[in-house]
Amino acid sequence: MYDLAGADSNRRFSPYCWRTKLALAHKQLAVETIPWHFTDKAAIGFANSERVPVIVDDGKPVADSWAIANYLEDAYRSKPSLFGGAVGCSLARFYNAWADTVLHPAMARFLALDILNHIAKEDQAYFRKSREDRFGMTLEEFCKDREARLPAFSQLLEPLRQTLASQPFLAGQQPLYPDYILFGSFMWARSIGTLRLLDRADPIDAWRERLLDAFGGMARRAPGYW
Amino acid sequence: MYDLAGADSNRRFSPYCWRTKLALAHKQLAVETIPWHFTDKAAIGFANSERVPVIVDDGKPVADSWAIANYLEDAYRSKPSLFGGAVGCSLARFYNAWADTVLHPAMARFLALDILNHIAKEDQAYFRKSREDRFGMTLEEFCKDREARLPAFSQLLEPLRQTLASQPFLAGQQPLYPDYILFGSFMWARSIGTLRLLDRADPIDAWRERLLDAFGGMARRAPGYW
Repeated sequence: MYDLAGADSNRRFSPYCWRTKLALAHKQLAVETIPWHFTDKAAIGFANSERVPVIVDDGKPVADSWAIANYLEDAYRSKPSLFGGAVGCSLARFYNAWADTVLHPAMARFLALDILNHIAKEDQAYFRKSREDRFGMTLEEFCKDREARLPAFSQLLEPLRQTLASQPFLAGQQPLYPDYILFGSFMWARSIGTLRLLDRADPIDAWRERLLDAFGGMARRAPGYW
Repeated sequence: MYDLAGADSNRRFSPYCWRTKLALAHKQLAVETIPWHFTDKAAIGFANSERVPVIVDDGKPVADSWAIANYLEDAYRSKPSLFGGAVGCSLARFYNAWADTVLHPAMARFLALDILNHIAKEDQAYFRKSREDRFGMTLEEFCKDREARLPAFSQLLEPLRQTLASQPFLAGQQPLYPDYILFGSFMWARSIGTLRLLDRADPIDAWRERLLDAFGGMARRAPGYW
């Protein structure tokens, strides 16, 4: 698996790669991760992708976290299900779309400068240019006064908070792929973000702690701030 | 079933009651609906509730749309499942919370004055006072320039749009309770709201059309604007 890394190659911060690492762990599959940097486009050209995660399973390349989760579910049917069936897979899409279109744009305003400060020299110019074009402002402006954004960010999390106040995981008593989708976002925020985004009393933080402990503490052992 | 009604008792506009009516239809259960008004608190006191939906099934009262869906799923196991299993039920909670905490507050700013104009005289004073206390402004201020809010509202729907661009229903090839949760919100907006909130080219509108046709066109036949 090609896994986005910082200048310190142990700092793995992509939310999409975290989804895949947790999916692989859930499927009880061992994986060798290869640190990858934003400008290593050529290294994953064989998978017809410019972005990670990319996995190679028995010689077969698969790109894109959603496609990988579905590939693993189909290829490893005898292992624990990631979705709990076809309905669970369909219902997981909304979680995926909420993370990508609501949660990540809001988190990015806390993280963009932290990312710049943690990535390799050769990635920094690429990251600044591509993100400043996308955001329409400098990274410094984009992340300015980020602490003042915390109350609005907390409000945005309300549907997640209400759900996790009622049950230990999004999928119920045990985590499934929808949990890994959203936990992956919080692993992004933990692994590279210096600002804690959740109160310790928040039910979302209690869920995050449970998933930090999952799979023998795999996520907790990863370099991170909070 | 006690079902929120306007001055015209055929105008049934509660999103929560729509969830329940669709759940009952999915379970192939016939139901007699009793029009109920905001100030008819005494009529449902027997169910220990001040809000609808309230159902009475074989003498047993059940209040609250989520509790009713779970009651129906348990009580009528031989009928089509509303959730497709325990994982589907757990995953449905986030849809419920997203509707209640994100979608409804945004829709209310299009609908509050329309509601006032459609409800019975005896309900109007109650509705104005309780909502103006909640919103911290007059209903007229709350709904002012509503057309200008349409682009932001459309943006808010992006996770729903992305999901429904990939599959016909939230639950996959056939609708389940998560579809009814969010369709119920759009039935609120259709049955009492004079302003169309979706472009006809929006995948969300195509999904809405499919559900208007469901159960022999049950929802389409209900009085509404768009």
